[in-house]
Amino acid sequence: MVGKPLSIEEVEVAPPKAHEVRVKIVATGICRTDDHVLKGSFPNIDYPVIPGHEGAGIVESIGEGVTCVKPGEKVIPLCLPQCGECSSCLNPDTNCCLKTHRFTCKGKAIHHFLWISTFSEYTVMPDSAIARIDDDAPLDKVCLFGCGFSTGYGAAINTAKVKPGSTCAIFGLGGVGLSVVIGCKSAGASRIIGIDINKDKFTKARELGATECINPQDFKKPIQEVLVEMTGHGVDYSFEVIGHTDTMVSALASCHMNSGTCVMVGAPPSGSQLSFDPMLLFTGRTWKGSIIGGWKTKDSIPKLVSGYMEKKFNPDVLITHTLPFDKINEGFELLQSGKSIRTVLLF
Amino acid sequence: MVGKPLSIEEVEVAPPKAHEVRVKIVATGICRTDDHVLKGSFPNIDYPVIPGHEGAGIVESIGEGVTCVKPGEKVIPLCLPQCGECSSCLNPDTNCCLKTHRFTCKGKAIHHFLWISTFSEYTVMPDSAIARIDDDAPLDKVCLFGCGFSTGYGAAINTAKVKPGSTCAIFGLGGVGLSVVIGCKSAGASRIIGIDINKDKFTKARELGATECINPQDFKKPIQEVLVEMTGHGVDYSFEVIGHTDTMVSALASCHMNSGTCVMVGAPPSGSQLSFDPMLLFTGRTWKGSIIGGWKTKDSIPKLVSGYMEKKFNPDVLITHTLPFDKINEGFELLQSGKSIRTVLLF
Ligand SMILES: [Zn+2]
Ligand SMILES: [Zn+2]
Ligand SMILES: [Zn+2]
Ligand SMILES: [Zn+2]
Repeated sequence: MVGKPLSIEEVEVAPPKAHEVRVKIVATGICRTDDHVLKGSFPNIDYPVIPGHEGAGIVESIGEGVTCVKPGEKVIPLCLPQCGECSSCLNPDTNCCLKTHRFTCKGKAIHHFLWISTFSEYTVMPDSAIARIDDDAPLDKVCLFGCGFSTGYGAAINTAKVKPGSTCAIFGLGGVGLSVVIGCKSAGASRIIGIDINKDKFTKARELGATECINPQDFKKPIQEVLVEMTGHGVDYSFEVIGHTDTMVSALASCHMNSGTCVMVGAPPSGSQLSFDPMLLFTGRTWKGSIIGGWKTKDSIPKLVSGYMEKKFNPDVLITHTLPFDKINEGFELLQSGKSIRTVLLF
Repeated sequence: MVGKPLSIEEVEVAPPKAHEVRVKIVATGICRTDDHVLKGSFPNIDYPVIPGHEGAGIVESIGEGVTCVKPGEKVIPLCLPQCGECSSCLNPDTNCCLKTHRFTCKGKAIHHFLWISTFSEYTVMPDSAIARIDDDAPLDKVCLFGCGFSTGYGAAINTAKVKPGSTCAIFGLGGVGLSVVIGCKSAGASRIIGIDINKDKFTKARELGATECINPQDFKKPIQEVLVEMTGHGVDYSFEVIGHTDTMVSALASCHMNSGTCVMVGAPPSGSQLSFDPMLLFTGRTWKGSIIGGWKTKDSIPKLVSGYMEKKFNPDVLITHTLPFDKINEGFELLQSGKSIRTVLLF
C-alpha cells in the first residue's frame, strides 16, 4: 500500500506460458524509483504491486517457443524490453519497444514494475524482457545493470555523447549520478564536477572520476552562476539526476548557452509542471532525456556486463550495503536517509 | 520610439576606423525580429535604434587592417559575427562568437541591431561582421541570407540534422518557417507537415515541399494529438517558428516521445516563462534552439549564397513584396496583417 512499509507475502507465481520465462531472482538492487512507487508518486501504477526492477537471477523454467535462454542460465530482467520486431526495435534511434504493453507511449508511464517485479523470489516475464548474461557474472553485483548503472552510464555515453576533453556537471551523486560520473570519465571528459547537498557523497564521486565536488549550500549565488564562473561559459554537458524541477532548470542554465547539452536523468515528479525562461533554449542549448540510458536493452545489457567482466568499469563501489531480502525495509530506510548509495538484497 | 512607426532621418555615418567597413546597403528584408524591436518586446535594446539586420550591399570604404573585403565588393552584414579567433570561433560546436560585444552570453540578448543596422543607406560594421559574397549575386534577393533563410534552413540542416525519409512538422509558415520547409526537403524528409492558422500560407508551403498543411482551428483536439494520430507515434522533427510558449509545448509534444527532436526557432517573448510537463523530455525527446541556424556565419553565408547561385534552393519565392525604402512602414503593415511573407526594401 502507498505510504506503508513493504510487506513480505507468499505469492503464487504461475508457470511460464508460451514466450514467457520464470526466473529465480538471486539479487536485486533498491532503486529510487522503487521508493517513488512506495510513496505513490510514480504515475500509472496499480496497487498492490510487487516493485523491484534491478534484479539478476537464474532461469528456472521456460515456456513454449522460448529460444533466447535455457534453464540454469544467468539473466537480467529488462524493465524496458526489446522484442526486436516492432517499429521501434527496428529503428536505430529509439529504444522504446512497442511490445511494452504496460508502457503507454504518450509520455506517461515509464517503468512497468508488474512486468518484472524483482522483489520476488520467483518472477515470470516475457522472453522479450530478459537478457542472458555471462555465466561467470556475479549476480549480487551485476543486478545494477538492470537499471541504475545502465541508466547513468548510458545518459553520458548514448544520450549526451560526451566528447573527450569536455567539461561535465552532475547534479545528484546517488547511484545513478555516480554512474553518470563513470560514463563521463570513460568518455574522456577532462573536468567532471559533482554537485550534491550531501558532502558524504564526495569521496565516492572523486574515487570514480569527479575532478571537483561542490555543495550548492556553500554558495550565496545560484549554483548555475557558480558553474558558469568556474568554467567561463558554462559546462559542455550537465546532468540532472535528482528529479526536482528546480535543479532541472539549474542544470539547463549551467551549460553553454550556444553549445551545451543538458540531460534529464532524474524522474520528474508525477504530474509536475516545470517553468523556465525559453530564452535558455532559444540561444542554442540542447535539453534531452533518455529511458534506461538509451540502450536497446536486450542487445546492450549483456555487452555492458561483459565490459564489467573485462574490468572496463567498476560499479561495485556503488554497492554500499548488502542485506538479506527480509531486511528490505531497512534497505529503503538507508536510501531515504542518504546513508546508502545502493543496497543489494539477496534471496 | 517604441510603438511608433519608423521615421526616416538623415544620420551621419562616420568613416570606418581600423578593422571596420562602411557598406552601402542596397536591399534589406523586413524580419519579424525588427517588428519586435519596434514594439519594444525585444530584450536589451537601447532606443532610439536603427533596426534592420537582413541586408545586402556593396563595400563603400574600408578602415585600416581590413583584408577580407575591398571597396566595390558585394557583402552581407552579419548579425552574428565570426571573428575566427575567439574560443567559440575555434570550437566547431558553437557559432556564438565572443567578439559580439553587444551580445551577452547569459541567455539574454541575441541580435544586436546596432551592430549592422541595415535600415540605413550607409552603415559601418567591424570586419568580423561582414561576409563577402558572389559578385553575380542579386542583392535584392540574397539579403534574405542575412537572417531569415539561413535561420530556418540551418534549423533543419544543422540543428535538427533532419534525416532522409523522416517526418517533419513546422509550426508557423512565415519566411523563416518556409525556410525550414526548404531545409527539410533538401535533407530528404519524406513527409513535411505545415501548420498555420492562416490558410493563405498553404499554397506557398506546398510549392516549397510541404506534403500536408493543417490548420489547428479545424480540429477540436489539441494539434499535438492530431499530429500523433497522423503519424502513429509523433513526428521525427518538429519546429516552432512562431515564438509563442503554448506552441513551443505543442511542438515538443508532437514529436516521438523517445526519439523526437523539437527545435525552437521562433524567438520567445522577452522575459517569458514556459511551463510544461518535464515527463515530455524525460521519456527521451530532445529540445533545442540555435542562433542563425547554427551557421558559423562568415564561413557559411557565402557558401549558402553560392548554393543559391547554383540553384540548390530557391528562397526567391519567399519575397512577396519589393518596395522602395521610403515605404518601410507599409512593409511593416504587410507583415503585421499577415499579407506578406518577406518584403524587401530597396534603396
Ligand atoms: Zn520492440
Ligand atoms: Zn530504477
Ligand atoms: Zn569569434
Ligand atoms: Zn531576423
